[in-house]
Amino acid sequence: MAWDEGAPVVGIIMGSTSDMPAMEPCMQQLEEFGVPYEVKVASAHRKPAEVHEWASTAHERGIRVIIAAAGKAAHLGGVVAAYTPNPVITVPMKTSDLGGLDSLLSMVQMPSGVPVACVAINGAKNAAILAVQMLGTGCDEAHQKIIDFKTAMAEA
Amino acid sequence: MAWDEGAPVVGIIMGSTSDMPAMEPCMQQLEEFGVPYEVKVASAHRKPAEVHEWASTAHERGIRVIIAAAGKAAHLGGVVAAYTPNPVITVPMKTSDLGGLDSLLSMVQMPSGVPVACVAINGAKNAAILAVQMLGTGCDEAHQKIIDFKTAMAEA
Amino acid sequence: MAWDEGAPVVGIIMGSTSDMPAMEPCMQQLEEFGVPYEVKVASAHRKPAEVHEWASTAHERGIRVIIAAAGKAAHLGGVVAAYTPNPVITVPMKTSDLGGLDSLLSMVQMPSGVPVACVAINGAKNAAILAVQMLGTGCDEAHQKIIDFKTAMAEA
Amino acid sequence: MAWDEGAPVVGIIMGSTSDMPAMEPCMQQLEEFGVPYEVKVASAHRKPAEVHEWASTAHERGIRVIIAAAGKAAHLGGVVAAYTPNPVITVPMKTSDLGGLDSLLSMVQMPSGVPVACVAINGAKNAAILAVQMLGTGCDEAHQKIIDFKTAMAEA
Amino acid sequence: MAWDEGAPVVGIIMGSTSDMPAMEPCMQQLEEFGVPYEVKVASAHRKPAEVHEWASTAHERGIRVIIAAAGKAAHLGGVVAAYTPNPVITVPMKTSDLGGLDSLLSMVQMPSGVPVACVAINGAKNAAILAVQMLGTGCDEAHQKIIDFKTAMAEA
Amino acid sequence: MAWDEGAPVVGIIMGSTSDMPAMEPCMQQLEEFGVPYEVKVASAHRKPAEVHEWASTAHERGIRVIIAAAGKAAHLGGVVAAYTPNPVITVPMKTSDLGGLDSLLSMVQMPSGVPVACVAINGAKNAAILAVQMLGTGCDEAHQKIIDFKTAMAEA
Amino acid sequence: MAWDEGAPVVGIIMGSTSDMPAMEPCMQQLEEFGVPYEVKVASAHRKPAEVHEWASTAHERGIRVIIAAAGKAAHLGGVVAAYTPNPVITVPMKTSDLGGLDSLLSMVQMPSGVPVACVAINGAKNAAILAVQMLGTGCDEAHQKIIDFKTAMAEA
Amino acid sequence: MAWDEGAPVVGIIMGSTSDMPAMEPCMQQLEEFGVPYEVKVASAHRKPAEVHEWASTAHERGIRVIIAAAGKAAHLGGVVAAYTPNPVITVPMKTSDLGGLDSLLSMVQMPSGVPVACVAINGAKNAAILAVQMLGTGCDEAHQKIIDFKTAMAEA
Repeated sequence: MAWDEGAPVVGIIMGSTSDMPAMEPCMQQLEEFGVPYEVKVASAHRKPAEVHEWASTAHERGIRVIIAAAGKAAHLGGVVAAYTPNPVITVPMKTSDLGGLDSLLSMVQMPSGVPVACVAINGAKNAAILAVQMLGTGCDEAHQKIIDFKTAMAEA
Repeated sequence: MAWDEGAPVVGIIMGSTSDMPAMEPCMQQLEEFGVPYEVKVASAHRKPAEVHEWASTAHERGIRVIIAAAGKAAHLGGVVAAYTPNPVITVPMKTSDLGGLDSLLSMVQMPSGVPVACVAINGAKNAAILAVQMLGTGCDEAHQKIIDFKTAMAEA
Repeated sequence: MAWDEGAPVVGIIMGSTSDMPAMEPCMQQLEEFGVPYEVKVASAHRKPAEVHEWASTAHERGIRVIIAAAGKAAHLGGVVAAYTPNPVITVPMKTSDLGGLDSLLSMVQMPSGVPVACVAINGAKNAAILAVQMLGTGCDEAHQKIIDFKTAMAEA
Repeated sequence: MAWDEGAPVVGIIMGSTSDMPAMEPCMQQLEEFGVPYEVKVASAHRKPAEVHEWASTAHERGIRVIIAAAGKAAHLGGVVAAYTPNPVITVPMKTSDLGGLDSLLSMVQMPSGVPVACVAINGAKNAAILAVQMLGTGCDEAHQKIIDFKTAMAEA
Repeated sequence: MAWDEGAPVVGIIMGSTSDMPAMEPCMQQLEEFGVPYEVKVASAHRKPAEVHEWASTAHERGIRVIIAAAGKAAHLGGVVAAYTPNPVITVPMKTSDLGGLDSLLSMVQMPSGVPVACVAINGAKNAAILAVQMLGTGCDEAHQKIIDFKTAMAEA
Repeated sequence: MAWDEGAPVVGIIMGSTSDMPAMEPCMQQLEEFGVPYEVKVASAHRKPAEVHEWASTAHERGIRVIIAAAGKAAHLGGVVAAYTPNPVITVPMKTSDLGGLDSLLSMVQMPSGVPVACVAINGAKNAAILAVQMLGTGCDEAHQKIIDFKTAMAEA
Repeated sequence: MAWDEGAPVVGIIMGSTSDMPAMEPCMQQLEEFGVPYEVKVASAHRKPAEVHEWASTAHERGIRVIIAAAGKAAHLGGVVAAYTPNPVITVPMKTSDLGGLDSLLSMVQMPSGVPVACVAINGAKNAAILAVQMLGTGCDEAHQKIIDFKTAMAEA
Repeated sequence: MAWDEGAPVVGIIMGSTSDMPAMEPCMQQLEEFGVPYEVKVASAHRKPAEVHEWASTAHERGIRVIIAAAGKAAHLGGVVAAYTPNPVITVPMKTSDLGGLDSLLSMVQMPSGVPVACVAINGAKNAAILAVQMLGTGCDEAHQKIIDFKTAMAEA
């Protein structure tokens, strides 16, 4: 499996550095799984060209799953999904006014042709688990990690 | 005023041809105001490069106001706004499941730095009026058209 | 451009002095753009005649764009829009009970004929940027300010 | 009681002729109570001066209770309430996209100082009953009509 | 006018003593208007007979307007309205989980035949003003108090 | 078990005859279970004394479970629960404007001390099953009926 | 009645130890009623087999009513209801982002055939009262406890 | 790639045959991609053992991605996710009362440890595309199919 060499297979992108604390459990969980990842901070609205560049080249750099976190009118996941053939997991950020309902609907209600895989509001840890489940569809090692993770969870 | 020569000053973009009937009142109203416009149909998600190209060159082609209509996780307005210095009016399309609340929140809750000017769900006619009001900030003719329009409305 | 002489071209109105802190980023951003503005505090419900007077004369005083901030059953933007030919940007104030959903729907769902340009809940800074984008439709200097602003943001 | 002479004591105002069918039960109920009323159709946004004039003179014409029906960003009730010392009953109209939640919040969430008396979405008949209850606070005949109405309802 | 003798003309009822702080502005405003009131604390669910008794005799004791405050599944207003011919103003209490949307819908959506006059979530002060407006329909003194109140507010 | 003699053990009450079609599956399911029931149509608001009488005597007539169906500001279940020691199952009726969210919140959010057992919007059949489950806590025959019902469902 | 011997007749299950504080009033109320209960903490998602085992054997251990508390996508109540013939009371936990609307809808909107008895968000105490009401359908002692409880509440 | 032999690699499960029409586009899209799938109809609530068996053995039968569709309190996806190490895509079904908001929140708000990949309400086609994207993380052929699909979509 590619990640044994340490090259990132999961690419995490978030709209703002203010999303970093909420996304910490995602990175922590990937580390517990031993899955190498890269992190990018760039707003789809403020730095569209940078997001475009990062998203459209991710699969060429070896990234196989993308995790996108953003809040409010959270277009980041959809914009990334438009430019990559990889599956894109979206994490709607909780917002101070509408609780994250805005982020959630902006992410999950993707129109036909360009899906994202939306997890719960602030579901950072779950995004990591889901990423490894996706990798597990074609990688016995990742698949086994999930089986072990679920067994440990059931026995905890 | 540039539009006397017939070159489009308003650019209308919508995510799908299925949005066309709901946007008809927008075009009709622009015609009543005598404001030339162009119409583009392209999904931010399915045809991102085409949207990128259209949006980033619009102001160079003489477009001064953009109207973007889309439904569900309606990223079109935000994506266009990321690429243009023009003001972007967004029209959230009514949806069959959530009534357009998803479109509305996806459009109006834009994060800091990249605004859009959101009108009501399916507010196509109002988008046209607002576009002319914007043009009126720097064009006496457009300004007068709005004054006349309001007078006529009050007397109707 | 008129604003070089320092006469206000943007008129900010808010329903209550309690909205002032939330609107600070709006004024700050206008100052960064060098756009002169005036500020009015008057409730559409408690001081209707004063709002009526202010709104219906704004364009005659040189105001070209109006920004209206209010909360709850936020009628201020609509009331102002009824009396002015200028474009009216509305900023729905966050509320302590419904998070601002009430302010948002009260502002954005304007009926046919009288649009407002709604930004996000508490989107004060974006209101300022949008105002300058509107001015940019007829003023090269404002247009250029936005281009520079977006470039700086992308490079930040 | 003044209404024996047939001069209207209840003033009904609605934002659009399209609200008329939904308001029919209101007028019918007032007729059953034998309470004279007048009906005005004028949008707070499209015909603000006309609404202003009507609302601010209503109590001088003998109107004691006002019923205001409107939909979407339903400012009519609040605008009328700003100009009249009379109690204002508001009827939020059902809307095709958000079901009337927009009308309801736009009406009921009035800020401090200027109340309205909001009834249910499309609650036209109840608006009439409430109007007569209000009149009953100072009129034995109206008070008795309500007592009789409730008795009949309980026995139906 | 009856209230000159000090007998209560407004009856305030609330579901719980925990609603008292939120209702303080109501009582304060009634005092400023010089309108005598009585206060009752009794839950429609926990003490139905007591509420029934209080509500069905209120108008016989001289109460002309009732103000009912409750939270969550806020049935108090409807229950009181079922037993009195008086107009009933309802104040939906803010709730810690749904912000008061539950209280609001439980109060405002009254079925046909038995209206309440709903004000904003925690709109205690407005309930008092509305009560006096109702009294003003049949009492010149109350009517004048509202006119004076609105003038003072406009000049504040 | 009492119901072998055919005396009703479940009391169904609904606010309006218009709720009857939606409640048909409830009665049908009770019949399939062979559980005798009685049906009452009376609005908590329009006929409060009748509801009061019915609810407060139900357990004395042998009723052991009550099912209450109502829509909009659906107080019926709470009012009945206030007067009976029996468990009260509430069925929020779908509404034409808010889809039944109003009925649901009005029923489920009961304040401390007086619970109801709320099922889904229009969940008439489930109300019947739940009623028999409740009876099954003290009646082997009812308990067995549920076991058989679940087995049949799993094998269907 | 079985509970005189102290064997649990109510089984409480919650998805996480973090739900314990919110569920304290439930246990306290059962103790005040003198109803023996057992408590189980197990997530339907993390420990499905354990939940399955607990739920499908509960009625064989003498449990007659189950109370299930969970938050977010709160499947616990439905999962338990699938495996037991007992009535299942669900307590939707308040959530930090959507206030518990997610927990509520996930619990109350059960599809046809498998009901739960949903109480209010964080309605722990009411769950206990409802459980005893259910037991009261077949147990005079429990029935009497509720009558006494309601009398005490009315006199408090 | 395993699917060349025709053994199903995607397992579709839905709660009811009534979900079949809404899920048709999912199957159609998988067929267009040439991805073999199996379809199971079983309710998590009515047939829990059958769902348990199907879900816990799916990965042993060669299934690599699961798609679960359900409506209302849509627990199916979460229940399946509890029993399988595979990634689970959930499709919230539109509902007749709340439009699918109940299905959506019941699916997307999964608690920590057990994620699902939620797509839009009725997003059946997108579920299929996302499934193939997941397979593409470990299968060049699937990866290429997505690249081709996106290219075709951009050129359509």
